Amino acid sequence: METQTKILNVTEAAEARRSIRKYTDQAIPQEHIDEILRVAGLAPCPWNIQPWRVIVVKCAVAKQELMGAAYGQPQVGAAAAVFVIYSDMQDALANAEDFIHPGYGDKIAAEANSIRETFEKMGAEKSEQWGFAESNIFLGFLLLAAQSHGYSTSAMLGFEPDKVKALYDLPAHVTLPALVAMGIGAEEGFPHHRHGLDRFVKVVD
Amino acid sequence: METQTKILNVTEAAEARRSIRKYTDQAIPQEHIDEILRVAGLAPCPWNIQPWRVIVVKCAVAKQELMGAAYGQPQVGAAAAVFVIYSDMQDALANAEDFIHPGYGDKIAAEANSIRETFEKMGAEKSEQWGFAESNIFLGFLLLAAQSHGYSTSAMLGFEPDKVKALYDLPAHVTLPALVAMGIGAEEGFPHHRHGLDRFVKVVD
Repeated sequence: METQTKILNVTEAAEARRSIRKYTDQAIPQEHIDEILRVAGLAPCPWNIQPWRVIVVKCAVAKQELMGAAYGQPQVGAAAAVFVIYSDMQDALANAEDFIHPGYGDKIAAEANSIRETFEKMGAEKSEQWGFAESNIFLGFLLLAAQSHGYSTSAMLGFEPDKVKALYDLPAHVTLPALVAMGIGAEEGFPHHRHGLDRFVKVVD
Repeated sequence: METQTKILNVTEAAEARRSIRKYTDQAIPQEHIDEILRVAGLAPCPWNIQPWRVIVVKCAVAKQELMGAAYGQPQVGAAAAVFVIYSDMQDALANAEDFIHPGYGDKIAAEANSIRETFEKMGAEKSEQWGFAESNIFLGFLLLAAQSHGYSTSAMLGFEPDKVKALYDLPAHVTLPALVAMGIGAEEGFPHHRHGLDRFVKVVD
């Protein structure tokens, strides 16, 4: 991250992050994108399943196509990169041996089968819903990692999943927690308007 | 945060975080808990709905009760504080005027009704599932915020939701994305075992 002068701390990154829809035309070096995705990939997941997958769309033509699947939202075309975040539990479980911690040693195969059994009992639809939900932890890490390196983002749910899947030949069973536009922001965004702690926190002490 | 010498940056916090199940008996000052929850509460949510709610369990007796609803997992009793994170879309939508940005001015009531309509069409069950999924972004922020202040965590899905709801008189419709144990760690935890970028990222450039 040689152009990076300072990585923001967690508080600074959370405070600086806004949903940004206007971007400069400055490109993002691929090594910055890789570093942001590496940090996001440290997000925890039950059983270490990591069902999240990412397509990084940088090509201008591809961004225009993607914008067409996102109700024409201009930030999709304007951002230097757009992350298509999807969850693929079927792929994750079929290759469970990949994510099980090597600490399991000769019990890796048994653990893989036990996890597969758990999700088979859950059924395919609920399993994919589960992957969708857990991938939002990855999304939280991703937004803070991007901001910590000086990049603004906009996480979006406003898109047509089937159209996005068609663009990238994604199988029907995958779920899409978000598209995330990322780049150098060209607007300030709205100031935060969040609940005070008294609205969402109770203490049992 | 007067006892805090340095807030970790996002990369440091993501790298330092492990699932920690053993804790020292050191208490956490309430102002640290408040600051961590404030930062977590800056997580984005579509329409700014912020359906996440948190019960902070610090009392030893209450932690033992909660442990009973979490298959006896010892970290629930051992951690200085345990966050019961739940999502309550019914409460959020009934009070939508609270979360709509004041920038809407005299259009706040119309916006509130439009959001309520969207979720009514979705149906109660899917609406609560949606809140569950989006609250995981808050969870991601929370884990990094805690770690950035030197506190270890363990996010858990291993609990019986109905028993947890009964303990805190939570309504049946709420969903529980996680319990999170937090304290000063007394073990190193397992090193990360994560997919390399080639396993979960594709670039369209």
